[in-house]
Amino acid sequence: MDPIQEMLGSHPQKPGRHFDVIAQVIRCCYECAQVCLSCADACLAEEKVADLRECIRLDLDCADICSATGRLVTRQARPDSELWRATLEACIQACRSCAAECARHEDRYEHCRICREACERCADACQQALSAYPEGGAEASH
Amino acid sequence: MDPIQEMLGSHPQKPGRHFDVIAQVIRCCYECAQVCLSCADACLAEEKVADLRECIRLDLDCADICSATGRLVTRQARPDSELWRATLEACIQACRSCAAECARHEDRYEHCRICREACERCADACQQALSAYPEGGAEASH
Amino acid sequence: MDPIQEMLGSHPQKPGRHFDVIAQVIRCCYECAQVCLSCADACLAEEKVADLRECIRLDLDCADICSATGRLVTRQARPDSELWRATLEACIQACRSCAAECARHEDRYEHCRICREACERCADACQQALSAYPEGGAEASH
Amino acid sequence: MDPIQEMLGSHPQKPGRHFDVIAQVIRCCYECAQVCLSCADACLAEEKVADLRECIRLDLDCADICSATGRLVTRQARPDSELWRATLEACIQACRSCAAECARHEDRYEHCRICREACERCADACQQALSAYPEGGAEASH
Repeated sequence: MDPIQEMLGSHPQKPGRHFDVIAQVIRCCYECAQVCLSCADACLAEEKVADLRECIRLDLDCADICSATGRLVTRQARPDSELWRATLEACIQACRSCAAECARHEDRYEHCRICREACERCADACQQALSAYPEGGAEASH
Repeated sequence: MDPIQEMLGSHPQKPGRHFDVIAQVIRCCYECAQVCLSCADACLAEEKVADLRECIRLDLDCADICSATGRLVTRQARPDSELWRATLEACIQACRSCAAECARHEDRYEHCRICREACERCADACQQALSAYPEGGAEASH
Repeated sequence: MDPIQEMLGSHPQKPGRHFDVIAQVIRCCYECAQVCLSCADACLAEEKVADLRECIRLDLDCADICSATGRLVTRQARPDSELWRATLEACIQACRSCAAECARHEDRYEHCRICREACERCADACQQALSAYPEGGAEASH
Repeated sequence: MDPIQEMLGSHPQKPGRHFDVIAQVIRCCYECAQVCLSCADACLAEEKVADLRECIRLDLDCADICSATGRLVTRQARPDSELWRATLEACIQACRSCAAECARHEDRYEHCRICREACERCADACQQALSAYPEGGAEASH
């Protein structure tokens, strides 16, 4: 067990049957936030930085949204609420936009390839969480 | 002019006709992020903290989303993109959820009243920005 | 009164005689965090972005530290603690490093001049807070 | 290799002989930031929340400082600078303060025990980074 799972397991309002889905969203959001920030910094250090402005911005956007989403999902409250859904949807969009831009540069830059993969993992995890808790679901306390 | 406007005015890609709308979103997001964090801490210090758990959580959620939104909008890029819209929509939802919870406590706690008002201002500012840049709008560079 | 002061005034553990010093640190930290992020984005949009890599990095560093400091000081607890002091000291250093780098570019870029000034205001506010609560002070509850 | 190491390895200014030390600081800062936020939320959900106010505050402080430190160290620039040192020192202090408070509650609450351990790992990693890059060291580009 990693610390994310250990903490969830010791929480008085631990997630029920979707424990693994929640743990995976948190893990992917924190990982993607770090990788995007690292990609922005690597892009900034490249000789052709002028070609990578859009990538740097989307990296920073994605890092901010993933970071906020990871914090929100860490707090164990109402996983089927509208706020929870709107946040996961924004996160999926951020990950997809960043992955698409990174994909344009990954032949040249290894860091863009790694970042694109982290974004895809995070979008998948968020999508699974949305599916696990259908809109208007009654399972208020997961 | 406050520093937010001064900075926008000196940016190579400054917003065009919606300058004031953008400045207001940024101002409200940073203000609301601070006020929500302050409300969470004030709630935590109240004698009846056990009645305010939900308020503290929503304060922290709203602070995180407003903070990420303020940072995203500060970056002057593609205001009509899907990511921009999804983020503003999550922010409006966060502000409304937090305002609704704070409203339940504002007769007793002045900090909840001030926080509810900051959340409403922020939701309004985000809504105006969404209206100013209609979905699928062609004005890519504002 | 701005919302920062209103919130401090309604907090069960409001700051005592150094109310204005605390309000000013919070105000300057949030302002500087926003201005530094805006300067990073403006630098990224400049034609000579390759000359501004160091400025962008220090802008992002300063935004991160100011943001964390503003959040820490917003929480009304033990202003004379070692953590409180170490955080303010890191913030002063971040503001000074960023101001020094921005000063090198301010003849050419207005955004660097505005950012340098915000950093200086923030460093001053943090310094005044350190002076107001001397190390090892007994005033645990301010 | 985890994504943190992969990203560092693909960075144009990758760390030299202290690669593992840098990777470990980043890993521990992100982990500790998440665990502290989770501990704050678990404390908030405990029946005796009123006894855990101080722990919640220090959890939130530590999460903020670890998060800022993780972001700063992710950016590969001047690891022996004064800002880098001041930030690591603030992070060590945050981790130690939070660990000490969590230790007071760990007999009763498993989440406080897990959080105390994450804080100790993070403080150790930051301390090793400070030792690896002695003050005033000439190795500007690590």
